Order: sequence, then structure tokens, then C-alpha cells
Amino acid sequence: MNRLMLDLGIIKLASPGIFHLLPLGIRALEKLKSLIDKEMHKINAQRLALPALTPAELWEKNWLTHEEAITDLLASIAPLSYKNFPLRLYQITSKYRDEMKSRFGLMRGRQFLMKDLYTFDIDMENAEQTYSEIIKSYENILTKLGIGFSQVLAATGNIGGLISHEFHYTADVGEDKLLFCSNCNYKGNVEISGQDYCPQCKSTKIIVRNGIEVAHTFLLGDKYSKSLNATYLDRNGSIANLQMGCYGLGISRILGAAVEVLSLEQELRWPLVLAPYKVVIIAPKGGSKEEVLTSGLDQELYDNIDKLDGYTGNILLDDRNHLTIGKRYLEARRMGYPYIIVIGSKATETNPLYELNEILTNKQHFLDKNELLQHFRSIQ
Amino acid sequence: MNRLMLDLGIIKLASPGIFHLLPLGIRALEKLKSLIDKEMHKINAQRLALPALTPAELWEKNWLTHEEAITDLLASIAPLSYKNFPLRLYQITSKYRDEMKSRFGLMRGRQFLMKDLYTFDIDMENAEQTYSEIIKSYENILTKLGIGFSQVLAATGNIGGLISHEFHYTADVGEDKLLFCSNCNYKGNVEISGQDYCPQCKSTKIIVRNGIEVAHTFLLGDKYSKSLNATYLDRNGSIANLQMGCYGLGISRILGAAVEVLSLEQELRWPLVLAPYKVVIIAPKGGSKEEVLTSGLDQELYDNIDKLDGYTGNILLDDRNHLTIGKRYLEARRMGYPYIIVIGSKATETNPLYELNEILTNKQHFLDKNELLQHFRSIQ
Repeated sequence: MNRLMLDLGIIKLASPGIFHLLPLGIRALEKLKSLIDKEMHKINAQRLALPALTPAELWEKNWLTHEEAITDLLASIAPLSYKNFPLRLYQITSKYRDEMKSRFGLMRGRQFLMKDLYTFDIDMENAEQTYSEIIKSYENILTKLGIGFSQVLAATGNIGGLISHEFHYTADVGEDKLLFCSNCNYKGNVEISGQDYCPQCKSTKIIVRNGIEVAHTFLLGDKYSKSLNATYLDRNGSIANLQMGCYGLGISRILGAAVEVLSLEQELRWPLVLAPYKVVIIAPKGGSKEEVLTSGLDQELYDNIDKLDGYTGNILLDDRNHLTIGKRYLEARRMGYPYIIVIGSKATETNPLYELNEILTNKQHFLDKNELLQHFRSIQ
Repeated sequence: MNRLMLDLGIIKLASPGIFHLLPLGIRALEKLKSLIDKEMHKINAQRLALPALTPAELWEKNWLTHEEAITDLLASIAPLSYKNFPLRLYQITSKYRDEMKSRFGLMRGRQFLMKDLYTFDIDMENAEQTYSEIIKSYENILTKLGIGFSQVLAATGNIGGLISHEFHYTADVGEDKLLFCSNCNYKGNVEISGQDYCPQCKSTKIIVRNGIEVAHTFLLGDKYSKSLNATYLDRNGSIANLQMGCYGLGISRILGAAVEVLSLEQELRWPLVLAPYKVVIIAPKGGSKEEVLTSGLDQELYDNIDKLDGYTGNILLDDRNHLTIGKRYLEARRMGYPYIIVIGSKATETNPLYELNEILTNKQHFLDKNELLQHFRSIQ
């Protein structure tokens, strides 16, 4: 059983730009990683880990720092046949940067977690198909998080290559500026398009909004494979260059940005799929008549919900009964648990009713055990 | 479906002491991490992540580098009541060291993965009980890996504290020396006991063997909590110092050492619970009569085994049918898959029989589909 012993919270500033990630934060992060792993598995991407001890680089617009290491790795495994492709390799690693403006917490920390994906194809037609497939996969990941996002054209910058897109959450605190054309639907980072008119249809019916960049994709072509000699043997046995793509997903940034976009001033809000725990049960105060009359119900409720698909391990019992229900309820709201169940006075009745608070929809219900379980089953 | 596209292997040397961890290696590592997470959950330990950007330290006998950060974290969350304890916090992080002798691969790499656990109790009696409980938990983890290990008394060294133990795999390549007394059953690192006689009963009936240290435990007392002011409020409302323990488990080292201990010269061997995939199916060679006559059986077999408890996602189809069965079989043995199924000539019969090779027991069976599924169910 997951008991709330001590509310350690989510993150805590250790020094400027450096954070302790506390148990709730780790749980959310692990859920995001697992969601990404599952999506990567669907597109047959294999995970690996390249060494982190590579020269430090400025990260500002240089998301992907392992192109050379991974191309080199591939070049070293010869001979590769055309039958081995497409090949998709990714890693999830901590990266560091010398960040002067670390004011946005996890969004721009000095230490951050990223997923890099590298793709290898035998020709441009296949590489373009891969590029579309990965973009679709990134859309799936971001859609599951339930926060609106925009995919925009981006500059290829230091990484280089043929085409590049970024995925953004639009938010005032975003440090990028995005141009949306109401006339032709063009979307782009103003870096490549200016802010005065649409670069595609020249219309001035445009909207410029701030964006938080959460993912970046590059169709690289043979820029890296050529210089690093990452080749394959084609159907005729001739040597040819691989066509590459590289793709970044800012894991800790997504976590920080999602919470930033969703939360209220005094209450955290998590995307439902990332909430550290979905349900918290608040047991009666010690010494109250409710404690005496509902004895054992908290444990029974916990065990029943814990058995439901999607809830196993996602439920927490707050039986710190030296604290009032009110204090624990406020704390639970601050932490952003989506469902808060209070065992209050109606739970002392012959057919005990529990107070279910649905935070995201701001609804309160009084339900008996079976109704409660049915409710959780139906919203799963 | 997990298809073997290109055999990238397990690890690859990037530069001395620095490794690329390839897809199979990552899978084994993730399995080990998950096994550890589950055991930590059982003892109510909560995971967090302390920043990695702390000053570099020599690691040789200094396993645990976050005592001060974590004690400081706890000291900053005040006031803590005695009701909040016992408290157990752990993290899994990459660490780095300046390692001159990096010849043993993952066993002594420059970059390595470790689990640190820190425990906090209100008095020494509780702290000792916690210490025993964690030792039991470490024994559970190591027992699940199926490799014999020894728990020995160790020096408290730089970390300090009241008592310390180490867990070792005994192996010739081990860099520690362990003394086992045949008279009184004492076991200790020779660092604290010399190599001439048993320090407990003075008997000379001793055996000295080399060991690979895979875990280390320290009962710290109040050494860190005192100096860093990590206190709590006792039942009377008085301030008292917490009693601590700290515990390290060398994750990448366990992986390297386990493979080192189990493997043959030409074939890897994994602890069954860590094998990157449990089962590989080798489909017939392209253009063979077996390919024509067994069409679709590989996929059917894959789907059936993949549905078995404990096998989901743990099965791999090697349908690189431009390679001979023999070549793929040898490669599968080299990689250490515990169960290799070959779809050969007996699979063309009316009741198709599959060749199941159990590598760990060196047995070969010919079984039809139902017998095969029953076999996997029974050994689960």
C-alpha cells in the first residue's frame, strides 16, 4: 500500500537551475518516460545509451548532441545491408548546459532529461516517409498529454539538414515567437519568417504568439552519414550513403511546461496520464467519531480501487490522522491529485457514502463503494 | 512485434572506460532497475533524484556521494514529527569517476549507474531494525538474480558510521579479498581483518577468495544528521537527531559482474530475469522448402508465446531470412537468449514440431505448439 508518510513534494530548488526531483516528481517523470518508450516501441525504435561524457555544447538551439556519436557507431558496424533498414535508435539521457536564465524551473533547468531519436534510411523517399511517421508519433505522444500544441516550421540552424519542425505549447512564458497565418494556415517560428506577414501567402492576417518548444525534428539527408562514412550495401552490392533524420523531445521540459500551462496559482494540475497518483484517499482524523465508525473502510476502499485497471499503484492513502481532514484536503489539491476521496460523516451511515472530488471538472459526488468503483471504471 | 533488424549487440567501447550501451544492454539494465524499484516499493522506499552536478569525488571506496545533499534536504523540510518516520529515500543515477583501470568493462566503467538509499529513524533501535530490513531486501534482489553472493563485514572507511557490510560475487577477477572462516563462519573483507587468521575466533582454518563488490551498507548513526541539523520533534515535542543509514547497489556493476560470472568464452549468459529477451524464434531461410511449408507459423508462434504471463514483450522474431539458420542460431547463442526456437524441417510435418533449445540446461526438445506453450507456462 502507498501510504503518504511525509509530503516531500515534487521538486525543490537545490541551487540556481539545479533541482532535487522529489518522489512525486519522479513518478510523473517515469510515467512520461514510459509513455514515450511505448510509442517508440510502436514505431520499432530501439533504445540505447551513448556516453554522456562528450564535450559540453551550448544547447540553446542545438537540441541534439549525439548525431556524430551515433553516426559513428553505425559506421563502425559494417557491412550493413539494405535489408537492415529502416533503423531507428533512441536514447533518454540527462544533459547539462550552462544556463544563465534558469528562472522557469524544470522548463529551463541546468540539468535536464531529453529523448534523442536518430533514423537511418536507404534513400530519400524512405527517409521522408520515416520523417512523417516520427512526426505522427510525436503528435500521438503530445495528444496523450491532453495539452494543445502547435507544429511549426523551424530553422535547421546548427544541426543543418533539409527541413525542420518544432512542436510548441503556446504560453505567455514561452521564449519563442510563432507566426500563425489565418489566411493560408501557415505556421512557423518567426526565426525563419519574420513577424510582419505570412512568408507563404504574404497575407498580413497573422497572429504571433509565444511558444514553449517541447520537441524538434530534422530531416538531415546525408550531411552526417557522408562526412562520417555511414554507408550501406544496396541491392547491387554498391556502397551508398544513408539518409538520416534526428528528433528531440524535451522530457523534463514537457513536464515543467505541462504543469506551467495547466496549473492554477495555488494548485498544481497534471496531465491525467502523468499525475503522480490518480487517487488519494483521506482517512478520518484520529480520535473522531468517523474514525471509530468507519474503521477498516479506508483499507478496503484502497484495495478495491487498486485492483482496477489503470489504477494499480496509482492510489495513495493519506492516513496521517494527526492532521485534520481540511488540512490534508488542501494539501492534496496543492499537489494536484486528480481524484480526492474523503471519508467523512456520510461514511458512517449504514450504506457508507464517500465524498469524491473530481478536481479537473470541479465536481463533487457522494457515492457508495460500488458506485465509486463503477465511476472509476467508466472514466478509465 | 519485436523483429530483429540488425544485431547491434549489448555494449560497445566508445573510448577507454566509456561504453555505448546498445539495445540489448539497455533492456537488461531496465529490467534490473525495475526489479530494484519493485523491491524498494516493498520496503516503502520512495524514489527521488538529487542533482548530479555535485563536486567530483574519488569513488574507490566511497560509494555514496549524496549523504550530505539528502540530509540537507531533510533538514530543510521542518518541522518533522516522529510520526513521519521511518523514512526511506533512494535514487538511481549515473555517476562518473576518473578510473585508470577500466579494463573490466561495465564492472569498472568511468560512467556507471548506482542506486543510493538513505534511511532515517527516530532512534537507534529503529535504525538497527531498518538496517536489517534493508539487508534482507538486498538479499532478495541478489537472490532473484540467481548468482551466489557473500555478505561480509566491511570497513566503514570515509563514509564513517557504526557498522558496514558488503555484498560480493566471488570471482577471480574480483579486486577485493574476502576472508571466510571455516571454524566460526565469520566473513569479512581482509581490509578490516588481515589474511592470516580469523579476527573473531583466531582460527587459521580460513579461506581467502577474490570478490566483486556489488553492494555496500552503512549504519551511520547521527554522524550526518548532527552536523547538518537533520532533526525531528519527539513525542514530548523536544528536538532530537535522526539516526541514519545509507546503502549502495552498483547497478551497471551487477550487470557486468553477473555476465562475467555466468558467461562462457564464446557465449554470453544472463541471469534469467535480466535476459534482454527470453525467447528468440528463428524463422526458416528464405527460398527454402521450410519457408514455403511453414508460412505464417513463425508469426502464430510469436503471438501465442507473447500472450503468456512473463513473456509479453520478451520474445524476438529473427526473420532475417537472408541469413542461414545456422548463422542466426550461433549469433543467438552468442547473445545469450535463454530459449532459442528453430523452425526447421520437423515444422513442415502435419503436426508441426518446433526445436526448442534451452541454453542454460543445454537441452533440446521437439515440441508441438501446445506442448511448447505448456512448457513455457510451467517454467515461468
